[in-house]
Amino acid sequence: MAIRTVDLNADLGEGFGAYRMGDDAALLEIVTSVNIACGFHAGDPEIMYETMRLAREKGVSVGAHPGFPDLWGFGRRVMPFSHGEIERLIAYQVGAAAAMAAYAGHRVSFVKIHGALANMAEHDRAVAAAIIAATRAVDASLAIVAIAYSELEKLARDTGMTVYSEVFADRGYAEDGHLLPRREPNAVLHDPVFIADRMVRMVQAGGIETVSGHMLPTPIDTICVHGDSAEAVQVARTLRQALEDAGISLGSPH
Amino acid sequence: MAIRTVDLNADLGEGFGAYRMGDDAALLEIVTSVNIACGFHAGDPEIMYETMRLAREKGVSVGAHPGFPDLWGFGRRVMPFSHGEIERLIAYQVGAAAAMAAYAGHRVSFVKIHGALANMAEHDRAVAAAIIAATRAVDASLAIVAIAYSELEKLARDTGMTVYSEVFADRGYAEDGHLLPRREPNAVLHDPVFIADRMVRMVQAGGIETVSGHMLPTPIDTICVHGDSAEAVQVARTLRQALEDAGISLGSPH
Amino acid sequence: MAIRTVDLNADLGEGFGAYRMGDDAALLEIVTSVNIACGFHAGDPEIMYETMRLAREKGVSVGAHPGFPDLWGFGRRVMPFSHGEIERLIAYQVGAAAAMAAYAGHRVSFVKIHGALANMAEHDRAVAAAIIAATRAVDASLAIVAIAYSELEKLARDTGMTVYSEVFADRGYAEDGHLLPRREPNAVLHDPVFIADRMVRMVQAGGIETVSGHMLPTPIDTICVHGDSAEAVQVARTLRQALEDAGISLGSPH
Amino acid sequence: MAIRTVDLNADLGEGFGAYRMGDDAALLEIVTSVNIACGFHAGDPEIMYETMRLAREKGVSVGAHPGFPDLWGFGRRVMPFSHGEIERLIAYQVGAAAAMAAYAGHRVSFVKIHGALANMAEHDRAVAAAIIAATRAVDASLAIVAIAYSELEKLARDTGMTVYSEVFADRGYAEDGHLLPRREPNAVLHDPVFIADRMVRMVQAGGIETVSGHMLPTPIDTICVHGDSAEAVQVARTLRQALEDAGISLGSPH
Repeated sequence: MAIRTVDLNADLGEGFGAYRMGDDAALLEIVTSVNIACGFHAGDPEIMYETMRLAREKGVSVGAHPGFPDLWGFGRRVMPFSHGEIERLIAYQVGAAAAMAAYAGHRVSFVKIHGALANMAEHDRAVAAAIIAATRAVDASLAIVAIAYSELEKLARDTGMTVYSEVFADRGYAEDGHLLPRREPNAVLHDPVFIADRMVRMVQAGGIETVSGHMLPTPIDTICVHGDSAEAVQVARTLRQALEDAGISLGSPH
Repeated sequence: MAIRTVDLNADLGEGFGAYRMGDDAALLEIVTSVNIACGFHAGDPEIMYETMRLAREKGVSVGAHPGFPDLWGFGRRVMPFSHGEIERLIAYQVGAAAAMAAYAGHRVSFVKIHGALANMAEHDRAVAAAIIAATRAVDASLAIVAIAYSELEKLARDTGMTVYSEVFADRGYAEDGHLLPRREPNAVLHDPVFIADRMVRMVQAGGIETVSGHMLPTPIDTICVHGDSAEAVQVARTLRQALEDAGISLGSPH
Repeated sequence: MAIRTVDLNADLGEGFGAYRMGDDAALLEIVTSVNIACGFHAGDPEIMYETMRLAREKGVSVGAHPGFPDLWGFGRRVMPFSHGEIERLIAYQVGAAAAMAAYAGHRVSFVKIHGALANMAEHDRAVAAAIIAATRAVDASLAIVAIAYSELEKLARDTGMTVYSEVFADRGYAEDGHLLPRREPNAVLHDPVFIADRMVRMVQAGGIETVSGHMLPTPIDTICVHGDSAEAVQVARTLRQALEDAGISLGSPH
Repeated sequence: MAIRTVDLNADLGEGFGAYRMGDDAALLEIVTSVNIACGFHAGDPEIMYETMRLAREKGVSVGAHPGFPDLWGFGRRVMPFSHGEIERLIAYQVGAAAAMAAYAGHRVSFVKIHGALANMAEHDRAVAAAIIAATRAVDASLAIVAIAYSELEKLARDTGMTVYSEVFADRGYAEDGHLLPRREPNAVLHDPVFIADRMVRMVQAGGIETVSGHMLPTPIDTICVHGDSAEAVQVARTLRQALEDAGISLGSPH
């Protein structure tokens, strides 16, 4: 019988100065890789360092998590940047993150894009190409964590990069494998047991389960969980336990 | 007869968005290495990229030029950061600059600190240690360009780093080899011919000429020129010509 | 014979910290009212104060010149803000400008919107309504300077506000009275004599002269000039002289 | 028997974008006046509007709460600004707050300085003078809320301004009436019952109780409470109840 392994990832270090976002300490006990905000949509050099240092202590893999330069909007707004500008925004942030990781005695293994820019790269091939060009220019050995079924996933794979396909523990999927827009019913899931059971099914089947219960075969390398509320941390814990109970091992591929 | 070589350096890419500071195009025709602002006291990813791309085309060496996170004050104010915070500020900026250089097909060869932070490192050994720790953590092969006779120069040399000692074409020197504070007479020089002649004497003698005319022996690896006015560009041109006329060759050591 | 009076306005105080944009001192000798950047797309409290103090000394009227919170893009990019958010952005900036004027011994008489937000208000009635609502909420006695033939001009007039219609000295007009997009031929004019002659004709006729030479009757209360280059300042000087030579008096209506 | 009234104030609206700081909704049910961050150390136009609108609905007085332009440091760091620059920083923020209050159908009644700048004004007469000059220039009718026994309190009173003396519910006082530095024992208090009892004694006696139990007679117009933790909200609730139980009425003087 095949031994399955899956990665659990979470966005960390998304505070700024005195502000905090999510329970980083709790998540570091649960996940196997973390995506570190790079100072544009969130994060600052102090928070980056502290988070990377903790990740190193916990043996958790670290990725750069670049976003739009939009602290006010937390990187969730579509900003008017050209594809060339997006390349430079990402190159800058990935380089800064790599340096902070080196300073913290760790290393950046992958790039996972944040917020509105990640959503654009789900459907827009030119944005996906910009992300890939920037990442490869800075360090050709970096992997890409991409939303399953996204343009970014396809293009990165075509380019020969190491790609890890990501699903979201608390998000519903349309019949075409894309994320349901947040305003639609079942777009955001809350029940820890339902979430955990669904993820176990998806990892075991090797596919995305749509809202209708249909399973779309696709590799699932990593599951994204959140820590922005006590409920979210509980979901993450329940999910981890359910995966382990199902004999699925947890670990970073990086 | 010994052939002497000296480097001419200038701060470039110190605009922000639509703002420009200095005549970068003119300076790129004169100098042999450029210090690129890293987005904290000045500069943004677009300007960093454009400037590094031009430097590559001109065959000019590139260094990271990190400063305090103080766009409003252009990095000229002493900001209340701890030594640890200074380390992280510099590591972040050096990493971002290295990534932008890679993206532009160039590479960062050295670190030269900007403004108030550079002035602190002239006299404060703990600040100098922070700069060195950050630089080495990011890339141990990076050289340091340090003000001649500064704590940073001494400590970097003691640490075994490659250090290039810098003098300022348009600044007067006190009898102890330190820069005269700007408010004192002869602290800032304006006459292109006087400036050029003094620099030729200093390079030929291998020392710093103080306001009284005394020569303090010290290696002079690089001369800093400015481009923030038409006058400043003229000074740089005159200086370059005078050095060449004196048989001193110009070139980056990087 | 009727005595005609027209206002000459210019955007001032659009620097930030050590950065400067345009020749404010030269323009203050030419224009009769100035639009002061409010710290979001450009400007800072020091520059606002200095510019307002100089305007008071010169007897020049002062307006608030709010824009998008986008220093990097100088307020020239369309940013993703809702109409409600636009209201708050403008209210904040107008209030800050009013306070800085009071501190400088002057007062804000009008509001003129900057950049991308002004362009949106030329055609988008909801944006125009947001601008009006914000301005009236802060100070119902403030006038609006609006692009001639714009939605903002019409709506502000319908609302009962004092409105001053503005034309641009160096911009070409389409047959419908709107500004030609910058990418089209004759969209931006450069010849000082042509510009001055055309403006004299427009003020004398009381209308906008389109690229074909057609005159669209409309009140012309104020002419916008620029100071971002030596050429632009020369245009402004030539225009002022031509208006005076034609017997048109210059003065702020505020 | 004299009826005593005291004001309870809290800092509100200290989030930024997606970030939140403290439980504003809980505090609005407890306090009688709120100090609204003005966008420099915290706050943005959206948060200012929302908080002022809620304050109006609850019938709670509103003050401007300006600080250093230091979002990263939350206004808690001593920044290198001259006294003139401090004047402009405060004038700008007070004007912005006044406009946002007008837009929200409320009004700003007073100014209370934030963080490091407030601490400077406790001891530094020139900083106090800058605060007063800025406030009076913008609106001479504004009151000042000043730390009891501070230079700002004395100077504002000498200047003829309306001044409200403030004590901190959770801070210990030295024998000279000044706040104990945070690093000293008993500088920060945590026990709700002790805090409440001490405040009742201070309001009834009309003085500051030092750590030794000595009472320094001084008017106490307003008590500052915090909401940055569940514990802090509990302290505020307990204090309010204790004051009411002691027959002290709660209300804003503004």
